[in-house]
Amino acid sequence: MNYLSDIGEDALIQRLVRLVPLDPAPAAGPGDDCAVIDPGPDHPSLLLLKTDALVEHIHFLSAAAPRSVGWKACARVVSDFAAMGGHPQHFLVTLALPPQTPVAWVEDLYRGIGDCLRRFGGTLAGGETSSVPQHSAAVISIAATGSVLRHHLTLRSTAQPGHSLLVTGSLGGSRLTKHLTFTPRLKETDWLVSNFKPSAMMDLSDGLARDLPRLAAASGCGLVVERGALPVTAGCTVEQALGDGEDFEMLLAVEDERVAGLLAAWGEVFPDLALTRIGRLVEAGAGEALDGGWEHFSAGSA
Amino acid sequence: MNYLSDIGEDALIQRLVRLVPLDPAPAAGPGDDCAVIDPGPDHPSLLLLKTDALVEHIHFLSAAAPRSVGWKACARVVSDFAAMGGHPQHFLVTLALPPQTPVAWVEDLYRGIGDCLRRFGGTLAGGETSSVPQHSAAVISIAATGSVLRHHLTLRSTAQPGHSLLVTGSLGGSRLTKHLTFTPRLKETDWLVSNFKPSAMMDLSDGLARDLPRLAAASGCGLVVERGALPVTAGCTVEQALGDGEDFEMLLAVEDERVAGLLAAWGEVFPDLALTRIGRLVEAGAGEALDGGWEHFSAGSA
Repeated sequence: MNYLSDIGEDALIQRLVRLVPLDPAPAAGPGDDCAVIDPGPDHPSLLLLKTDALVEHIHFLSAAAPRSVGWKACARVVSDFAAMGGHPQHFLVTLALPPQTPVAWVEDLYRGIGDCLRRFGGTLAGGETSSVPQHSAAVISIAATGSVLRHHLTLRSTAQPGHSLLVTGSLGGSRLTKHLTFTPRLKETDWLVSNFKPSAMMDLSDGLARDLPRLAAASGCGLVVERGALPVTAGCTVEQALGDGEDFEMLLAVEDERVAGLLAAWGEVFPDLALTRIGRLVEAGAGEALDGGWEHFSAGSA
Repeated sequence: MNYLSDIGEDALIQRLVRLVPLDPAPAAGPGDDCAVIDPGPDHPSLLLLKTDALVEHIHFLSAAAPRSVGWKACARVVSDFAAMGGHPQHFLVTLALPPQTPVAWVEDLYRGIGDCLRRFGGTLAGGETSSVPQHSAAVISIAATGSVLRHHLTLRSTAQPGHSLLVTGSLGGSRLTKHLTFTPRLKETDWLVSNFKPSAMMDLSDGLARDLPRLAAASGCGLVVERGALPVTAGCTVEQALGDGEDFEMLLAVEDERVAGLLAAWGEVFPDLALTRIGRLVEAGAGEALDGGWEHFSAGSA
């Protein structure tokens, strides 16, 4: 028998989506950072939908500050809306917690969600709480709606061979530093889609080595990474920058002739956040394969 | 220290919603079956949002047929849209599963979700899968958007003293019979909101003894239940009808003078499903208290 541990998350999703009715005319294919719903031609904005989950022992340790866990649960979703060129709107919080969870822990969790919503402009619309058996892992799932102007929508699938690849910030070591406290790059993507709209964009949650091939495949391209150019977090190796995951930085593809102008303007607007060219997209079948990154049902970094 | 097991779900929610930004102009107060978002006066429909979760050992046994578990996870959400007078639209499925889960189990779970979506008219928009530690309970969370015509929106909070209380179907014993295979009453609520719009409505998920006081409180009323009139499932006691929960029948309040006409018309349209008058709303402070029903963080039926 096949178990989840024998099959990758991407392969699993491909098998599952065949079994259920899908939107007959989706505004974006499955597998992008958010689902995109077109409410009709007279609406200037598209509806974005996203769900995500944090699991105790997997995404946070039991001893982690609950306010940071709440921030992370919410910020991961905000980051996905940012990656589409959009904004967060209405949030639903689903908690599955052991009965022996302190009420103060849950309140601090909600304070962290509130911190994130106040900073990035969403509101809580509803929620659900359920118990899990004693000693089962706590699960925090956040689903949300967002909104994106039609001409700001930025997919994974619309880049072309020859486009440059860039990343914000630095990569690697997140689990030791910022994975609970990272800043979703919403301010930056807002500026990007208004001024230098990328040809494709996604956020880096599972590591560049796993996420970049997803963007390249969605765009029908191969890829080349210039390892020497990677913005590696101080104290980390190139392998960590490729494989650690949970960077929550933005990966973007940009037409080559626009890169110099983008980098110059970026330096003016965001002097404290690096934007680094790390490689390029090439024809499908050319380029390189990347190893590493986070695999949800295996032992971890492959 | 206070633990979740010391505090009821309703009290917990009241404490949590103070800690996060809420919609400043909600179309419905917190605590209804769904959140209601008003997209603006030029839209004929309101947006409904709902999230729900099934937890292994709590809402289904490990040996339960996964196709039924998928049906139940989806049908619970459909039932909530029905309770608002609305319809389901776009679904997000979040799975937190142990790595040793068979792929075939997950596929059957999705088949059950697909069965429900095809029958009641929703589509899958996206999802998320995460591992949980070995031997942790599986959690299946479904969030969804729905839609309701403005004049069909039916809340819990809009009934008045004197209105009659009615329920569809029979109550009690669900865990031994239909809790995995129940039929959400969408066809019936569709007909109700078009023909005999209730003054208030909700679906019965935690048992009449817990849910009816919620409707009464939301409407600022007291309540009287005529125990002899309760449509008790064959083989069950009145206590089970009040307290078992997971009936997923509809509870409605109707102006007294419309009850006879409603019951006559209902019998013509839905000859195979009972609609029973079980009591009435009274002035706040009058009437009775009800004991029992499902409490999520205590030992179960209180």
